[in-house]
Amino acid sequence: MANAKKLINIIIKVLKDRGLSSTHAMISAKALINAEMVGAHSHGLSRLKMYCDRIDKKVINPKPKIKIKKISSSISYVDANNSIGFVAADIAIKSLIKNTKKTGIGMVGVKNSGHYGLSSYFVEQAVKKNLMVWCFTNAPPAIAPYGSKKTLFGTNPICFGTPSGNKVPFILDTSVSMINRGKIRVAANLGHKIPLGVALDRNGKPTTDPIKALKGVQLPIAGFRGSGLAWMVDILSGVMTGANHGGKVRDPFDDFKGPQNVGHLFMAVKPNIFIGSNYIKRIKENIRIIKKLPKIKGVKEINFPGEGTKKRYKKNMKKNIPIPKSIMEDLKKLNAI
Amino acid sequence: MANAKKLINIIIKVLKDRGLSSTHAMISAKALINAEMVGAHSHGLSRLKMYCDRIDKKVINPKPKIKIKKISSSISYVDANNSIGFVAADIAIKSLIKNTKKTGIGMVGVKNSGHYGLSSYFVEQAVKKNLMVWCFTNAPPAIAPYGSKKTLFGTNPICFGTPSGNKVPFILDTSVSMINRGKIRVAANLGHKIPLGVALDRNGKPTTDPIKALKGVQLPIAGFRGSGLAWMVDILSGVMTGANHGGKVRDPFDDFKGPQNVGHLFMAVKPNIFIGSNYIKRIKENIRIIKKLPKIKGVKEINFPGEGTKKRYKKNMKKNIPIPKSIMEDLKKLNAI
Repeated sequence: MANAKKLINIIIKVLKDRGLSSTHAMISAKALINAEMVGAHSHGLSRLKMYCDRIDKKVINPKPKIKIKKISSSISYVDANNSIGFVAADIAIKSLIKNTKKTGIGMVGVKNSGHYGLSSYFVEQAVKKNLMVWCFTNAPPAIAPYGSKKTLFGTNPICFGTPSGNKVPFILDTSVSMINRGKIRVAANLGHKIPLGVALDRNGKPTTDPIKALKGVQLPIAGFRGSGLAWMVDILSGVMTGANHGGKVRDPFDDFKGPQNVGHLFMAVKPNIFIGSNYIKRIKENIRIIKKLPKIKGVKEINFPGEGTKKRYKKNMKKNIPIPKSIMEDLKKLNAI
Repeated sequence: MANAKKLINIIIKVLKDRGLSSTHAMISAKALINAEMVGAHSHGLSRLKMYCDRIDKKVINPKPKIKIKKISSSISYVDANNSIGFVAADIAIKSLIKNTKKTGIGMVGVKNSGHYGLSSYFVEQAVKKNLMVWCFTNAPPAIAPYGSKKTLFGTNPICFGTPSGNKVPFILDTSVSMINRGKIRVAANLGHKIPLGVALDRNGKPTTDPIKALKGVQLPIAGFRGSGLAWMVDILSGVMTGANHGGKVRDPFDDFKGPQNVGHLFMAVKPNIFIGSNYIKRIKENIRIIKKLPKIKGVKEINFPGEGTKKRYKKNMKKNIPIPKSIMEDLKKLNAI
């Protein structure tokens, strides 16, 4: 695993120095390094300093007293007491697996949590236990509701996973914004244009100028459709759980006035509940049929969701994780190296 | 309700003539006329002849023996015995409401069903019982998986509903195709172009020519994101329930070689499970905040999903349902008028 182990130990030390227990530091470090391994660098090491800053400024609680309330044999409710998001998500997914294994269907709501990185990382844990899983989380304002020129919804990912009958699970982890903010930043740096229809300028006019887009708003996928999906995610993870919603989740990088109070909703079912072991036969057949379809020019293979991620993971396992200069400086500031 | 009542009675007669029970004919007639009232004419009277043709050719069973298997207190499994889709969906949503009221969370899978019209019509029934509901159904091939030049996924709608604290429920009912096939047909008739990125020609090349698009394939929303969502819907409603999947759902208009065997999955939770009556207060606040956002030029109001539909419904309630000449001819052929 190249230098991943070394980096995990560095992160554990940094977080323990700030008061996290060994277990909580380990959960967080593994999630951050997983993001690096799948190529989601924006959710990996580049966020470590932000988490530390939030602990230092007392808006993440390093020693949370997390309460799990059992609502029924299927349903649990977690008050994460402003823990680092990874720890809240880890407790929630474990509780979800337990409930679902018992009753065939489960749900866990979480309030008073924070940014937990990639949904797919937690969903995969339940898929490995042969469950079908959904995960919803809200996030700070990034995209404008359909018809508005002001951001309010987060990138509000929808994540769905299921066993695929293959070592690589089917995991769809999709934000509902047209384009990643990172891509707009890159276009701005390189002097490139961005496609029409992905962002508005500060006056609410469509723009292809990345600098104007950064000052304006990003758009949801597919107009009212994506806007509706983002709204659904805000309701599920924010309104229903008692967490912040309606644009009130704080930006973790910029807003230290209080905890984020992000909300999450995790749901799961046993995929074999209706048809038993035929489920695995059928999903393998489904994937086989789709992979065999004629491809458009330039496409070598039709990947199912999660397949590309796993390929990147395997490739990166053999390499050292690259550490940009700015992150090396962060690590020095954190007394990590 | 203008001539809606009269039309409902006409449809009931037509379907009873073909062997449906009064109850099943009534369920189907109400669903078809609801589609007309909300302006979804492609899901209303224009489909009556198709349903009758399928009954006449024995690929819809007018006297189904529908089996409901209780899997647990939360979960039921329906074998619709090739009933007309409306009847299967009606039984499923009623069973879902019962399960969810009892345990807080419910799921109903359906196999051997057919096209049931608008998901929102059935979801609304459960929302009126104060539940939060999801509904997934697959459909005959219409859109190409990301990377392929052949259609396979249906328009595979995702429907989500929740009480809104208002008379008008929040109901998102969205297909995962970029554009309705009907809109491409209209563009072809008028000699207009279609936007780039919504369809490919038969060789897999992007096209703005609606005639080439009709011979080619429609694209999912947002590239791999929409393709992944369509794939998820095929897994949930087809693979998991034992219904057709992987492009095998038959086209109801063109393919009379056998029943469609469409699958549906319905899920619900009590939205107040975590925070009690605060849920209604909070969702009202959420909607109020979003409606107050500054609007882009030309937008008078930000509607939540389902609001526009209900406005059309109310407006149409006061008017006669327009019946195009082709549908009048259908009705005559069916001995309806």
